[in-house]
Amino acid sequence: MFNKLEKQSLVDQVYAQIEQRIKNNSWAIGTRIPKEAELMEQFGVSRNTLREAIRALVHVGLLSTRQGDGTFVIANSELHSVLQKRVQHSTVVEILEVRHALDREAVALACRRRTDDDLQQMDHYANLCQQHMDAGEIPQFVEADFKLHQAITAASYNQLLIDLYAHLFEQIQMSITSTTVLNDSYCTGHRNLIQAIREQHSEQAMLIVDDYITYFTDRLQSLDHSS
Amino acid sequence: MFNKLEKQSLVDQVYAQIEQRIKNNSWAIGTRIPKEAELMEQFGVSRNTLREAIRALVHVGLLSTRQGDGTFVIANSELHSVLQKRVQHSTVVEILEVRHALDREAVALACRRRTDDDLQQMDHYANLCQQHMDAGEIPQFVEADFKLHQAITAASYNQLLIDLYAHLFEQIQMSITSTTVLNDSYCTGHRNLIQAIREQHSEQAMLIVDDYITYFTDRLQSLDHSS
Repeated sequence: MFNKLEKQSLVDQVYAQIEQRIKNNSWAIGTRIPKEAELMEQFGVSRNTLREAIRALVHVGLLSTRQGDGTFVIANSELHSVLQKRVQHSTVVEILEVRHALDREAVALACRRRTDDDLQQMDHYANLCQQHMDAGEIPQFVEADFKLHQAITAASYNQLLIDLYAHLFEQIQMSITSTTVLNDSYCTGHRNLIQAIREQHSEQAMLIVDDYITYFTDRLQSLDHSS
Repeated sequence: MFNKLEKQSLVDQVYAQIEQRIKNNSWAIGTRIPKEAELMEQFGVSRNTLREAIRALVHVGLLSTRQGDGTFVIANSELHSVLQKRVQHSTVVEILEVRHALDREAVALACRRRTDDDLQQMDHYANLCQQHMDAGEIPQFVEADFKLHQAITAASYNQLLIDLYAHLFEQIQMSITSTTVLNDSYCTGHRNLIQAIREQHSEQAMLIVDDYITYFTDRLQSLDHSS
């Protein structure tokens, strides 16, 4: 009985230590984790204990084991992996409706709480977007665009909203933007949105959110029908 | 090597079968799962394999083992357990802001998509709320109130929104309602909200959401200051 308890608690400890390394980014997403022998020595545990902790982390979705190739970090929080899995079973319309809800709230809160630093961040990414758009660099544009939206959400100072936003929309936002956005009015929209947040015009900021969500929805539906 | 692979895959199979029983509610939340010996026979696996699958489910947050008392089902989906854990680290204001976002979207979509059956469900729970309020039965009122909000969200026909709503707000909503609501105007608010959804007046429905979220926020802040 004592041994059973002790083993369980060792597995938990190893699990927690590995989780910690993943969360604090010492083992970043995409990294192959060290070999079994090395980890057994680092943690001072048996092969069975180590394997059990790793399998639990695979089930939770933080690690993935590829036969013959090792074990890799694939997500940095349980919330991330679980929400990503959930989003994969959603339609784009469902995701855009949830996005609409969170974006409206985020811009309204950002109008009340944004600091000068926040506005500088937003301007920085909006300028980057414009540069990449002018140069026709779509993948870079898409990345800067997502960072701009994250900077706006960060100015809401609501960490639950910020986490949901990052975990729900990162992948889908990138794929939506890259398939729908290819004109300059998108950058004008950015500037108008930042201006509304700067002037704390929340009604105006929310209308701009309504506009780009409608634009995405219409555009995706027309792509869908033409394919 | 072959044995290792086989064992891994047996653990996965047992994990998946238990998860399935939890998800389809054959093992409901709160249930104590059968004894080890019985499960070993049902799944045709060794004690070690069974224990490993169960520990992985404990890590994911679906099961919980109480020493000397057995193993219990504590959540019915990974999303539920992970979002509940996340919400425990949030402030009430953060949760109410996210709630505001999702409720506004839910009522706007419900105005467009509600069926006669949906409206009947809403009326049913609104009547229950009124009865329990009249009888001073607060715990029953709180439960009927949450079911009414779930019925409204269900009429959005957006399963991602419905899931986020259920997993994020179940516990917190119950605790907020039970500490703040003790007057009849709340039931009038219900009837006005359902009426707006019936008549498809989404602007009006969203204003009612704004009102009750403001009411909750003010009330909780005054409770906070008076304590």
